[in-house]
Amino acid sequence: MGATEEAGRDGLGELIGIEHLDADEGEARARVAVVDRILQPYGLVHGGVYPVVAETICSKATYEAVAGEGKVAVGQSNSATFLRPISSGHVNAAARARHRGRTSWVWQVEITDDDGRLCALGEVVVAVRDSR
Amino acid sequence: MGATEEAGRDGLGELIGIEHLDADEGEARARVAVVDRILQPYGLVHGGVYPVVAETICSKATYEAVAGEGKVAVGQSNSATFLRPISSGHVNAAARARHRGRTSWVWQVEITDDDGRLCALGEVVVAVRDSR
Amino acid sequence: MGATEEAGRDGLGELIGIEHLDADEGEARARVAVVDRILQPYGLVHGGVYPVVAETICSKATYEAVAGEGKVAVGQSNSATFLRPISSGHVNAAARARHRGRTSWVWQVEITDDDGRLCALGEVVVAVRDSR
Amino acid sequence: MGATEEAGRDGLGELIGIEHLDADEGEARARVAVVDRILQPYGLVHGGVYPVVAETICSKATYEAVAGEGKVAVGQSNSATFLRPISSGHVNAAARARHRGRTSWVWQVEITDDDGRLCALGEVVVAVRDSR
Repeated sequence: MGATEEAGRDGLGELIGIEHLDADEGEARARVAVVDRILQPYGLVHGGVYPVVAETICSKATYEAVAGEGKVAVGQSNSATFLRPISSGHVNAAARARHRGRTSWVWQVEITDDDGRLCALGEVVVAVRDSR
Repeated sequence: MGATEEAGRDGLGELIGIEHLDADEGEARARVAVVDRILQPYGLVHGGVYPVVAETICSKATYEAVAGEGKVAVGQSNSATFLRPISSGHVNAAARARHRGRTSWVWQVEITDDDGRLCALGEVVVAVRDSR
Repeated sequence: MGATEEAGRDGLGELIGIEHLDADEGEARARVAVVDRILQPYGLVHGGVYPVVAETICSKATYEAVAGEGKVAVGQSNSATFLRPISSGHVNAAARARHRGRTSWVWQVEITDDDGRLCALGEVVVAVRDSR
Repeated sequence: MGATEEAGRDGLGELIGIEHLDADEGEARARVAVVDRILQPYGLVHGGVYPVVAETICSKATYEAVAGEGKVAVGQSNSATFLRPISSGHVNAAARARHRGRTSWVWQVEITDDDGRLCALGEVVVAVRDSR
């Protein structure tokens, strides 16, 4: 249920300001500038930002890889473990496909701050289905 | 790292339009109207919306319960499993605290559509720490 | 990859002494007597026991439900959150299927002690595939 | 709630035949020979074996690192995603501590078969508490 930008539109991604970066096959990267509207009241990036970014880039990358075979990509699960808060700079996300199966792709995502410190870990499972 | 509205502001929650509903001790409920900006390109609610709502209501409810003892609530993990897409009406979230420990609260979250069908399951762990 | 007892044998389940209890459609229950060999050095039930029990009963119940249609059940993910240790009596597991889809079943599992206190929460996703 | 071998005993680990291998600070490795008693009825390694191994080595390594400061290690959560079955040889587990905080350690675990293929991913969170 993630964003695939099939039609070039990704409302939630735009809303939080996801900037997609270059990616190789089986990898995806993006970043989000830390601005007021993605903070929670303590002045830290809202924990929900990490799964949004992870879901967006993993679904998009899976979709782009399987669309040519007439398949669609549908988010199946999304988990995030928070290690260290981010309060300025960027939320930097790097995703790596650890499994590219016929029926599901499994991604691991690392979130770092601008000093390269690991701030969150994520896992996204994307189901691959025949498009109807 | 979730929203607690300590200062009455919750940027990400407002961005996706979270409407907080009445809740009892150890429970929290909210809903989000399905509008274009929370959809992904297939016309389904973006999978990232569910963890955002879950993180927001569970962090907020934990904070409100422990703030009186001089504690703060800090999101520790957030996982969602997607069962059925939502494409109209509301995303309805109901969270229940299954464990209210001295150092962490564990919440289960159910996401339903306006017909009461179960659409996603979530778990949010919120650490409780002394405020400094 | 869980136990289905297709052939009446479940090595790991027997090893830790799983006792299967009556279950309805979409539900499964089992218990494990707390004996020395399932404890860790502090005298508490080893945390690995909970996912073993959860995997075993959810895979078995899914298998029994889909085998008649020529399908097999294959464990896809298993997560457990530990809330309170158990050191005597039984590990009681109750699983409920929250989603019974064409390609996957999603189970929630509650682990309680003999006083009915909630000790762990689990989620097991079982993929349903055509048997070859 | 994992095994720490404080007293040199680890019932469940012995039961499934965990062989602890050399490890550096912040890392832990072990393997389990594939024998009948850890298989499920299809002849594949029971999915519960992976979280048992992960819980055992991550709890043990955390305990060994913090015991000198008068702390104990208590399993908090354990999740596994299954990618590919193992049916012979060894279950090889390599764990890496991605976060070593004052109150919790977060480990990622990779399970491979004897051909080096990735078969499962795991995450174990171990709480660090003052011993009483």
